[in-house]
Amino acid sequence: MDKKEYIKRQIARTNKKDYENYVVTRIIHKLDDLDIKFTTQQYVKRPEGCGLADLYFPQINYFIEVDEGHHLTNVEADKARDADFEDATGVAPIRIDVANSNIEQINNQIDIVVNEIKTLIQKEKDIGNFKEWNIEKEMNPDTWIEIGEIRIEDKVAFRKSVDWCKVIGLNYAGWQRGGATHPNEKDTLIWFPKLYPNGVWNNNYDEANGLIITERNIENQAARITHVNKCLRDKVQTRIVCARVKSMLGDVQYRFRGVFKLDAKQTNHENGVVWKRIATVMKTFDYKTS
Amino acid sequence: MDKKEYIKRQIARTNKKDYENYVVTRIIHKLDDLDIKFTTQQYVKRPEGCGLADLYFPQINYFIEVDEGHHLTNVEADKARDADFEDATGVAPIRIDVANSNIEQINNQIDIVVNEIKTLIQKEKDIGNFKEWNIEKEMNPDTWIEIGEIRIEDKVAFRKSVDWCKVIGLNYAGWQRGGATHPNEKDTLIWFPKLYPNGVWNNNYDEANGLIITERNIENQAARITHVNKCLRDKVQTRIVCARVKSMLGDVQYRFRGVFKLDAKQTNHENGVVWKRIATVMKTFDYKTS
Repeated sequence: MDKKEYIKRQIARTNKKDYENYVVTRIIHKLDDLDIKFTTQQYVKRPEGCGLADLYFPQINYFIEVDEGHHLTNVEADKARDADFEDATGVAPIRIDVANSNIEQINNQIDIVVNEIKTLIQKEKDIGNFKEWNIEKEMNPDTWIEIGEIRIEDKVAFRKSVDWCKVIGLNYAGWQRGGATHPNEKDTLIWFPKLYPNGVWNNNYDEANGLIITERNIENQAARITHVNKCLRDKVQTRIVCARVKSMLGDVQYRFRGVFKLDAKQTNHENGVVWKRIATVMKTFDYKTS
Repeated sequence: MDKKEYIKRQIARTNKKDYENYVVTRIIHKLDDLDIKFTTQQYVKRPEGCGLADLYFPQINYFIEVDEGHHLTNVEADKARDADFEDATGVAPIRIDVANSNIEQINNQIDIVVNEIKTLIQKEKDIGNFKEWNIEKEMNPDTWIEIGEIRIEDKVAFRKSVDWCKVIGLNYAGWQRGGATHPNEKDTLIWFPKLYPNGVWNNNYDEANGLIITERNIENQAARITHVNKCLRDKVQTRIVCARVKSMLGDVQYRFRGVFKLDAKQTNHENGVVWKRIATVMKTFDYKTS
């Protein structure tokens, strides 16, 4: 996916609210900077459930909400939601009030926001922190091999599991299996699971905290017991989890969810296999020199 | 309807093509001038049928097409369509090629178009021709009473038939009937018909040339004959036609279609009543002094 396709698809999703498309496109076109990445309908985990932010700039952790509510009646509710949001993301969202504004006032609010974004980007540049948006690069394993590690907050996703094999040092042309043994880390597997019920697997993953994965075969009791026993006996009890997900743009991706270890205490024939997160960072290795 | 609502609704319709919303919003936001009116999905009468233009600036008669076709394969077809378009509108549409362009090239084409529009607006201003977009004013009868006439190309539409009564000098508080006798022009009626089959009326209007209206009662033969005879006997055989239409934004409007005269030769019990256009301009009168 190139920037042209990415931008089109992101903007195509800005139709949840009446003025959302107008506000989002004005911000993007007024910024007019293809080095700045943005996402629309950004999923945000919040203490109370989860929600979507209308527009998000990951390079400066900046969220924008198009506010169609009538402030006079729900100032308190907005404050609570903003506090909630801030707990989850570290920042409060910027609200663009469209309900109580005429078109000149809407434009004026947007122009202030655009200037603020430009200032924040410039600050990042001044301290040497700004990395320009490079869509080809961020989806390229080589970028991460060079950096030496991948953290959960990097939100790395590759289109193919073979790209994940590359970042642990496996130079495969293709890879169709559900996991691959790590060539550089003992007793570790890189794993490409579907972390939701699928076929005979009733897998479970609590996305809100990300700490536990449960893997349970529901074909029949015999199969469940066999699988649990096999995992408990297996020497490889650490898994780098790169889960198969559908991106919000609809394409399949494999996304890093952390490093997990089999929890032998919680794992039993009833629960199935329980995996517990032990790290939110993984090391990367060069497949060309391995 | 204010500009905020108008702009939202116009932009909401830019989803016929993949990149249409991106291109249209970039042009509007980069122009960033609320004095410039625009319409999207503008209906264009063409010699060969009709079509829609993706974006239209009426103050400078400027049409833009978002081109998703692959030029290499249909240069000839595009040329024919542009010639067709030019016959109908007087100008060829400006094409933004999105199919064969990357995002930088799309932006570059748009920026050139935006500069051209700004230049054309400035030229109109320099020769004193530019009238700033005033949405309240153009829907206000007083504006047209002051100008003294309404031409078809002014594309005047009012929300209520009583506003049309005002521009011929009738100071009514409300008006629910299908027509009103002109107080200032002898043997003339201002008429608010539905120019399409509705109820017992099989009305017909050839929008492509706008020259003929046929009015035919299909309830039964007796009703049709009665209506034809009544019209032929009537002294009032000139009608200012302000047809009831649904605007592309979905609201009901009454739109000036010209001045028509009963065509006694073509009118008969079989055809129904045939009206022939005799003028594309009407005079306006002040209802406050009539």
